[in-house]
Amino acid sequence: MQTAILLFDGMTVLDAIGPYEVFQSVPGVDVHFVARTKGEKRADFRRLGLIADFTLDEVPRPDVLLIPGTPFPASVTGDPAVLDWIRGAHETSTWTTSVCTGALGLGAAGVLDGKRATTHWLALDALRAFGATPVDQRVVRDGKIWTAAGVSAGIDMALALVGEQFGEEAAQAAQLIIEYDPQPPYDGGSTKKAPVALVEGLRAQFASLMGGQE
Amino acid sequence: MQTAILLFDGMTVLDAIGPYEVFQSVPGVDVHFVARTKGEKRADFRRLGLIADFTLDEVPRPDVLLIPGTPFPASVTGDPAVLDWIRGAHETSTWTTSVCTGALGLGAAGVLDGKRATTHWLALDALRAFGATPVDQRVVRDGKIWTAAGVSAGIDMALALVGEQFGEEAAQAAQLIIEYDPQPPYDGGSTKKAPVALVEGLRAQFASLMGGQE
Repeated sequence: MQTAILLFDGMTVLDAIGPYEVFQSVPGVDVHFVARTKGEKRADFRRLGLIADFTLDEVPRPDVLLIPGTPFPASVTGDPAVLDWIRGAHETSTWTTSVCTGALGLGAAGVLDGKRATTHWLALDALRAFGATPVDQRVVRDGKIWTAAGVSAGIDMALALVGEQFGEEAAQAAQLIIEYDPQPPYDGGSTKKAPVALVEGLRAQFASLMGGQE
Repeated sequence: MQTAILLFDGMTVLDAIGPYEVFQSVPGVDVHFVARTKGEKRADFRRLGLIADFTLDEVPRPDVLLIPGTPFPASVTGDPAVLDWIRGAHETSTWTTSVCTGALGLGAAGVLDGKRATTHWLALDALRAFGATPVDQRVVRDGKIWTAAGVSAGIDMALALVGEQFGEEAAQAAQLIIEYDPQPPYDGGSTKKAPVALVEGLRAQFASLMGGQE
């Protein structure tokens, strides 16, 4: 199952790497990191470079495409070459997926029109602009489109997708290989559980990023 | 707080990227990706390259060092330059940390002697060779040494460390930014919960890797 994960300057790395680590543990999944041009792409705050081994043109019809998120959604929504690739790949994909604000990339490519979807909690309302119905849920599947909430949610999505495609045993093996038995030290990883002041503080802090670039 | 994350050919990428994503969301944490030589390092199964921006010599005394794991522990335990760097950095570090089989790197450098530690469940017994007491727990802290179990456990460790160093509010903010409200589709991410046949199957499958390289 050819799986293409998009890389771009400004990406949030864990959005891509959580699912990658799940997918690559499954026999028969062939992960390709793709980008508009080959070579180094820098992470959102420029502390790390990842290498795209393939151009978009080299992987035009993956079975699975995955669009990671970014605090700067225009990096994807403003790139016509990437949006064309998403549209083309989605035509024949088995699964079209996103993590975090990668959903805004799917939206800008037109594939979320009339669909239920999720994204990072800070960007949930922005989905409406693309005709999507925002769903405040960690993983949302609508037909062949899977969207995950913020950053770490890509791990849960990838495991669910592997379970759907390859069966429960393959997904459980992947989960055990990455020893995914989460025990977060705080129970505040969603806006429903975190202190209100913290949620509002982060909304204010990130408003300029998300709002300024959508 | 200068934080150095080791990269090397053969690394398991999520081991490094889980904690990186937590650390980089905390104001005042400065993450550096380091390696014996600068430039591209390939992941364990060669599907991705990450760029080391700094040599070990350029970051000799980080406040935090983090050693990610690998299915090929000799990549770290067999590299004298890396082991020297670990030893030197550990002398003055605030926190010395590992994820997954990165603990075997700490062990080979001599810093786990007489300490309680954890690692990937497939490698737990191997800690004894370094004078450490294996603890079957997701995150283990012994003094200034933090070790995490397999792959995804680095996220939990990093959040706990941020809580210890910067306080609960900083850790909760990091957790909410990466929306870490885990909802794995299966409850089998540890050997205590997974089907016995699956555990034994993976032990057999990975024995040659782990056993052959420790």
